[in-house]
Parts: sequence; C-alpha cells; structure tokens
Amino acid sequence: MCPEWNQLATHRKPPAILKTKLQLPVKILTGPGPTNCSERVLQSLKNQVLGHLHPEVCQLMDEIKAGLQYVFQTNNRLTLALSASGHGGMEACLTNLLEPGETILVVKSGIWGERAADMATRIGVHVEVIETEHTSAVTLEQLEIALHRHNPVAVFMVQAESSTGLKQPLEGFGDLIHRYNALFIVDTVASLCGEPFFMDSWGVDATYTGSQKVLGAPPGLSPISFSPRAETKLLQRKTKPSSYYLDMTLLGNYWKCFGNESRVYHHTISATLLYGLREALAEIAEEGLRASWIRHASAAARLRKGLELRGLRSYVKIPQYQLSTIISIELPPGVDDTIIVQRAMKNCNVEISRGLGPTVGKVLRVGLLGTNATFGKVDLVLRALEILPSKL
Amino acid sequence: MCPEWNQLATHRKPPAILKTKLQLPVKILTGPGPTNCSERVLQSLKNQVLGHLHPEVCQLMDEIKAGLQYVFQTNNRLTLALSASGHGGMEACLTNLLEPGETILVVKSGIWGERAADMATRIGVHVEVIETEHTSAVTLEQLEIALHRHNPVAVFMVQAESSTGLKQPLEGFGDLIHRYNALFIVDTVASLCGEPFFMDSWGVDATYTGSQKVLGAPPGLSPISFSPRAETKLLQRKTKPSSYYLDMTLLGNYWKCFGNESRVYHHTISATLLYGLREALAEIAEEGLRASWIRHASAAARLRKGLELRGLRSYVKIPQYQLSTIISIELPPGVDDTIIVQRAMKNCNVEISRGLGPTVGKVLRVGLLGTNATFGKVDLVLRALEILPSKL
Repeated sequence: MCPEWNQLATHRKPPAILKTKLQLPVKILTGPGPTNCSERVLQSLKNQVLGHLHPEVCQLMDEIKAGLQYVFQTNNRLTLALSASGHGGMEACLTNLLEPGETILVVKSGIWGERAADMATRIGVHVEVIETEHTSAVTLEQLEIALHRHNPVAVFMVQAESSTGLKQPLEGFGDLIHRYNALFIVDTVASLCGEPFFMDSWGVDATYTGSQKVLGAPPGLSPISFSPRAETKLLQRKTKPSSYYLDMTLLGNYWKCFGNESRVYHHTISATLLYGLREALAEIAEEGLRASWIRHASAAARLRKGLELRGLRSYVKIPQYQLSTIISIELPPGVDDTIIVQRAMKNCNVEISRGLGPTVGKVLRVGLLGTNATFGKVDLVLRALEILPSKL
Repeated sequence: MCPEWNQLATHRKPPAILKTKLQLPVKILTGPGPTNCSERVLQSLKNQVLGHLHPEVCQLMDEIKAGLQYVFQTNNRLTLALSASGHGGMEACLTNLLEPGETILVVKSGIWGERAADMATRIGVHVEVIETEHTSAVTLEQLEIALHRHNPVAVFMVQAESSTGLKQPLEGFGDLIHRYNALFIVDTVASLCGEPFFMDSWGVDATYTGSQKVLGAPPGLSPISFSPRAETKLLQRKTKPSSYYLDMTLLGNYWKCFGNESRVYHHTISATLLYGLREALAEIAEEGLRASWIRHASAAARLRKGLELRGLRSYVKIPQYQLSTIISIELPPGVDDTIIVQRAMKNCNVEISRGLGPTVGKVLRVGLLGTNATFGKVDLVLRALEILPSKL
C-alpha cells in the first residue's frame, strides 16, 4: 500500500454504540400511522436492490402507477409516488401548482391546514384561511363565501384530519371550486383506501397520500396524482417550481407519464420501497377497494360501540364527520393521557396516541389502518383502554 | 352493511398487472450506484415497521447520527439523514444556506455542478460558475480568482463527479473559502467511505451523501451534516427556507441535534430505511473507515491495471484526479456503448453504465462501491468487458 495511507489517520473513532446487535420489537401499530405491514410486504423488502432505471424497476413503476390510479379512482396520467413522506406530497402540490404572489384558500380544521399554510407562505404564496371548529367540517356554503371573497388560485382541504379525527366530506366541492376557476387540492394521507375517495368524479385536481397509512407499505413514499387541469396549470407557470426534487414535470418524465418514449433520470428512487408499495397495492387490488372501505367502516363502528359501552365519547360528535381510519376519543377529565399511552404499550403491546397540535391533552387517538382494521385489533385496543375507566 | 355502500361503485377496476407474483433478479450492481446491499442489511429490512417517535427508532437515530459523524469525520451536532435521495441532500444544502438574491459560486465539472446551479436558480439565488474541463479539477488559484471576483456567500464543489469519474481534491479549499467569508458545500454522494474525507479538518461547512452508494444501504436516505459556521448562517436567515420538508432547523429538532430535551415531530421517517442504514454504518464501523478507503483504492487500482492490459484507457488521465469509486473508461472509437452495457448484463449479470450528461457516448462507467469494491467483482467486470476488444 502507498505510504501516503499512513498519514490518513481518522481522528474520530468508530462509535461503540454501533457494535450492538440490531434488535427490534414487533408492536401493534394502532396509532395514526405508520401501521403494520403484512408479511408479504415485509418479505418483499429483503430483495436485493436494483437500479433506478433497470427494466424490472421500470416495470414496477408502471405497476405502481396502475395501482395508484385504482386507489385514487382516477384516469390521471400524472400519477406516481414521490420519494418522500406525506409532507413531501403536500409540499409538491403547493410548490408545483402555485406561484409567488398567487392566493391559496386553506381550510384549517387541525394541524394539516396549518402546515399547508406554512409551506405556501415559504414559497411566497398569499394564504387565506377558513378555520372550522375541530369537530365540524367546512360546508359548501361557507366555502363559497370564501371563494367569492378571496378569489384563490387553489383550495386546500384535508379528507382525514388526523389530529382531530375529523372527516371532511368532499362531494360537491370540486364543482363549486371549479366554478370559481380554482384548483382543488386534497390531502388523503390518513384516509385513502380506508374512506371512499373518487378523485375524478369528485373533481379533485391534486391529491397525495402516505405509503405507511392504510396502504400498508413502509414509510418513505408519497403517492400523488394531478388532474389534466392541474397539468395545465403546471404548463402555464411563469417560473420553475422552487424545488427540483419535487418538480412534477421532471418526475412525470421519469415516471413516463406524458407519453414520453424513454424515462428521463431525475433521482435515485428506492427500489426497496417500491417493492413494498407494489406488494401493498397488489394486496388492496386483491381485496378490492370497496371491500377495504367496508372493512374499515366496520372496524371503526365496533370500536365506537365498545368505547360507548365503556363510557368513553368520540371527540367528533356528528357521525358524518367521523372517520373510519382515525378515531379520536375525548380524554375524560383527570386522566393523564401519557400514562394511558404508556400502559397500553407496556401491558398490551398496543399503540394508542396522544393528541397532536390543537388536540394535545384533549384526546386519545386510535388508528385502524390497513392490516389493523380488523375486529381482532379493535378488541385488543379496547382491552388496552380498559385501564382507563379504572383510573377515573 | 349500510345500504349506502351499494351506491359506492368503483368505476376503475383493480389492474390485472398487479395480479402477477413479484419476481426480482439479483444483479451485480457495478454501475455508479445504487450498489448491492450486504445480506445483513437486507435481512434488517424485513423487520416490522415502528413509529417515527418510538423509543427504539429514536435510539436508531442516535446510533445513525454517531455513525454519520464517524464517516463524515466530524463533530458537527447538526448531522442526520434526510428522508430523500442525494438530490434532496443537494437541495437541502442550497435551500437552507442561501437566501434569494445571494450569490453562490458553483464549480462545474460535469452534471452535478449544473444540477446545483439549476436548484439555486429556482430559489432566487444568483449563480456564478467556474467550469473545468471534464478531466481536470479546479485548482486553489482558479478558485481564488473567482472568489475575489464574485464574492459569493457559498461555494459548491463535488468530490466525486460521477458523470466523468473526476476526483476533486479538497484539501486547502476550506481555508481559502473561509478567508473570503464564504461557506464550503461539498457533494460526497459518490465518494463517502470510498475516498478519504475529513469534514472538520478540511473546513467543509455542509456535505451530503446518498445511502445507496459506498454506504451500502438501500436508496431513500441522504446523510447530511452542517458545521457550526453553517448553523450560524441558518440562524441569521431573514426568510424561512422555501422548503418545510428540507428545513434543517426543524429536522435538527426532530433528530435532537440542538441539545433539545425532546424530539419535535417533523415528518414520518422510514423505520425500514433506518434499519438498513444503521446496519450499513455498523458494518463500516466494524471494518474501519481507513480500511474501507484502502479497499476501494486497491480495487480501483486492479481495475485500471486490467483495463490497461486490455488496451482500454481511463477517461481521466491525471492519477490524482482519478476516483477509486467511479472509474470512467474512454469509449474506443466505433464501439456502441449500448451494446456493451446490454451484453455485460445479459452474459455476465454485471452492470456497466453508459455516460451521463456531458459524457454520454464518450465513456463507460464502472462503480466499485461498498460490498462491490473487491478483487472478485473487479475480475467479473473485466470479464464482462472482454467482449469489448473483440468488437474492435
């Protein structure tokens, strides 16, 4: 070896912390996500990595695109999975569909509208907010008044507000928003495949979700879809989106969405995560979307009934605003949510979550997502919560 | 079931394409990345997912941070892994360390400088470029002239220009750049752990790499580190970075980099990808960084010798500018690179890559990264290239 190597001493030594063996528990993830992956999904992950432009990976991307068009119920060609978490999906919608100086109308019913407002502000977009109570959704009438007043380029809504457990009905909003020449952006992170969603017939122009929620793949990818109307807005931009990484035109070229003959390299996609998402979508395709919606509704109904029997109340009172995926429970007075959460994990290996953002200290949150939307898991959650009344 | 479910017909049916069984080949990934993962890394990936704030995941994040401080050879507290590819790492450096109207000086020796210039332009940063020939690096003298002329806030350089196989020497540049009060940003995507790199003693203020290169983890994470000087620039910003997703202050709070007591939720990190990166870092810590550098140098030397014996020439002629990780080979006149690449894969299951960006049609590229930096893999690559001379 060259003598020069002797001079290359590493000042910082290998950390002892890395000498231990990786040992991980298996938990029942009935919080608001991530959820547990099926054995089929987990087994797929240990396949050797492949290149981001290898034919097998390109084939997987085509299969995933078809699967995503199915779960979004859309014919949109610009449908793909971003190499990012759901937050990246939110940022991609805003960064691609809005330019500095334009106005977005954000419906805020919890943390996610606030997050969208923060992101939009960062890219120089003017933000107008309709704030609803945490337990009731925005109505068509309320939205129309705001559309009339603010004349926004886009409206942002959240189907499943995971911080409060609120479901925002979406039917009719697309037509209204389009009458005001705005784009309809919907966050479906905590709802997709667990609540009915019809991108095309509801007139949604952009939506995104997270791979780790009802889909049941590992975290790390954010499925996203843009309508032809959203594509037109992309084309008419005067400036490039502030992010290269989330640029939907470049991503569409990589995912071969525009009828382009060959794929154009954009970034190194994670083959590992594609394996998992492909298998998760295959499982949903096998079960059928409608069957998945019904399964989630049934599990949630059983949970609500069990809560009622135990004297616990839903945080969201109006049934049409209650989600099947994330169930928020009013924290009874005098109960310490941290203790409940710790005991459920310690005694039952079950995850129950505290509130988030505006609901911290007010609720407990249960997620029945994907493989965990079963009566068996509901009964486990109820057992884990039985420690609750005894504390009162 | 409620009668309303009968009305919820899914117009789009499950795609037949998802009914097939997932079947994936194992290939020898001796292109410029991703590289093959070790069996230990692959096995870790099939562990059940855990939550992004579970204590076991927080522990993994601490272990990964320590491992990254080791491989970057830095004491920087703001050291973490972004939930994005290496392109996300590049964007994070630019978006966090520069504000609209400021000037960056980009050293461009191939595709990566160009990419950085594109990203900087998108966020309103003024870009000045020093363009070098593809086969020679920038010198201290050239850089000083440009620093003097442009007075930039930051300088962007690439240690391993994977499109050309060029190694940019980095010693001495930190001091020079700091004398001009600029920040030193270095892309170590295709070099880290395969080429000596000393973040602290070389005065590098920001660097990022990709999990899927020499580190040998699956793609999807981008390790990144900011120096105290870079942290100061973050603190002095007048505007928030344009990206929430890549905001290093928020990420530092999540990775507990600032001595904060508790972690602040920022996004859902991929537990799966953390498992892989943790195991990959553990393997490097076991081998030792210096041993890894020497192994990569030895493998590259054997490859170059083999190429020479076969009458093939390195694209980069000056030894000190030749990388150990990515070896670019001059494409002999009259040889079709596409045929070579296809035959190597078909006959030997070995990946060899065509040029990228400015080197398309000019070079073949071989990557000896991580587990593939061995004499055995070098000999396989040489065998796969033996088809080459016979074509002349």
